[in-house]
Amino acid sequence: MQIREVPIQRNGVTTTDAVVVEEPLEIRVGEKPVSVTLRTPGDDFDLVAGFLFTESILRSREEIGSIRHWGSPNIVRVSLSDGARVDLQRLQRHFYSTSSCGVCGKASIDALRVNAALLVDDTQVPTNLLLSLPDALRAKQSAFDTTGAIHGAAAFALDGALLCVREDVGRHNAVDKVIGSLFLDGASADILVVSGRTSFEIVQKCVVARIPILVAVGAPSSLAIELAQEFNLTLLGFVRDGRCNVYAGAQRLVSA
Amino acid sequence: MQIREVPIQRNGVTTTDAVVVEEPLEIRVGEKPVSVTLRTPGDDFDLVAGFLFTESILRSREEIGSIRHWGSPNIVRVSLSDGARVDLQRLQRHFYSTSSCGVCGKASIDALRVNAALLVDDTQVPTNLLLSLPDALRAKQSAFDTTGAIHGAAAFALDGALLCVREDVGRHNAVDKVIGSLFLDGASADILVVSGRTSFEIVQKCVVARIPILVAVGAPSSLAIELAQEFNLTLLGFVRDGRCNVYAGAQRLVSA
Repeated sequence: MQIREVPIQRNGVTTTDAVVVEEPLEIRVGEKPVSVTLRTPGDDFDLVAGFLFTESILRSREEIGSIRHWGSPNIVRVSLSDGARVDLQRLQRHFYSTSSCGVCGKASIDALRVNAALLVDDTQVPTNLLLSLPDALRAKQSAFDTTGAIHGAAAFALDGALLCVREDVGRHNAVDKVIGSLFLDGASADILVVSGRTSFEIVQKCVVARIPILVAVGAPSSLAIELAQEFNLTLLGFVRDGRCNVYAGAQRLVSA
Repeated sequence: MQIREVPIQRNGVTTTDAVVVEEPLEIRVGEKPVSVTLRTPGDDFDLVAGFLFTESILRSREEIGSIRHWGSPNIVRVSLSDGARVDLQRLQRHFYSTSSCGVCGKASIDALRVNAALLVDDTQVPTNLLLSLPDALRAKQSAFDTTGAIHGAAAFALDGALLCVREDVGRHNAVDKVIGSLFLDGASADILVVSGRTSFEIVQKCVVARIPILVAVGAPSSLAIELAQEFNLTLLGFVRDGRCNVYAGAQRLVSA
């Protein structure tokens, strides 16, 4: 359930309001709890798969034996397939990593980039097509209109075909759900669109999922731009009203 | 430095854009790294103090012997005063806690509420005063106008006097900076105003800091509302254009 009606007071009158549901989700790999995230229920398996994939815990869907709720709608357990070897310590290192040169943007990019390779330049896309995609996402965001408070993310093919759209109270979770859905289907995408801002972690998830073009309605952070440049990702921000800012990877864009 | 100019392409023309700076900050207590957060540099000591306080690692500023950058502008080390006893395992439990009844909203409230008591009903405030505070915050947000991409938070006294305002690329960080500044000064506040949405964690930070009134420009999540109700916090959302929704704690509000 993504939306809940709650009683409120507005201008001294008792009425109701639709709010987005936020509940904790515990992610377990085998017996081991690896993370608790506050998310909007729904598409939980996509969320878990996307999280484990973009954190480089999982590399392929064949490593998953089963994925199911485990004694509670707010616990998901992933059982590994025979022979799968995963590095659960990676998560711990991710959050607590340090380097002898200190924690700088560069060290962070090095430490957090989870071994992804440079994105290659084999795609070209008309800028006008990218400018139209936020509206396409918005049109599919069922919970946003009601609550005004939920993040959306969507994956598209290079011709603008919508592949997957997901919503969540957490910005990263919406992206994990989209990427996890593709991961579980063995599918790939060329473009990711997000309804909000882009941080370091959103760019990181695109890089790991090998999605070369990231389109955001909001602004990017400095570290998001640096990571996009370093991995040759095309990063657009403020994509609204038929305009945009191109922060990295302009070589993939062509006039319509 | 909160803002950086970067080169961009806009409508095929090369120009520049001001973006909000995001850099990792490692927090150490003594020798032990306890967290890495992606934050906007500036007010780092406030951020660290606010984080450790609202996570209930620190209970009073007297537990801090010193707080300083440590070999890098992106590492802050807190040395404890003699005799201070802190529970660093709490963070680990916080992120990985489970309960035999599973992870539900109720269990999460129980597990995450970090031992705070109910907020008492000793304050009354005119609704109209609260409606004016988001504009007061906005007027002090120096980096928002330039980047359109930074979260603001501010603490106010019951008469509407501004006590502290901070900005950050991360919503939780802006709140930690405000609460940390008060904590280091030994000060208290009656009202916290945030420029965005309210999640479980924003309400949790208010409860731990004993701030009974939370005013948000954006929407709350379901779990934010539940936690506010459980701890008797006054929670307002969609505070804009002279209107608001009251989600919890309406008894503190009076007509002007």
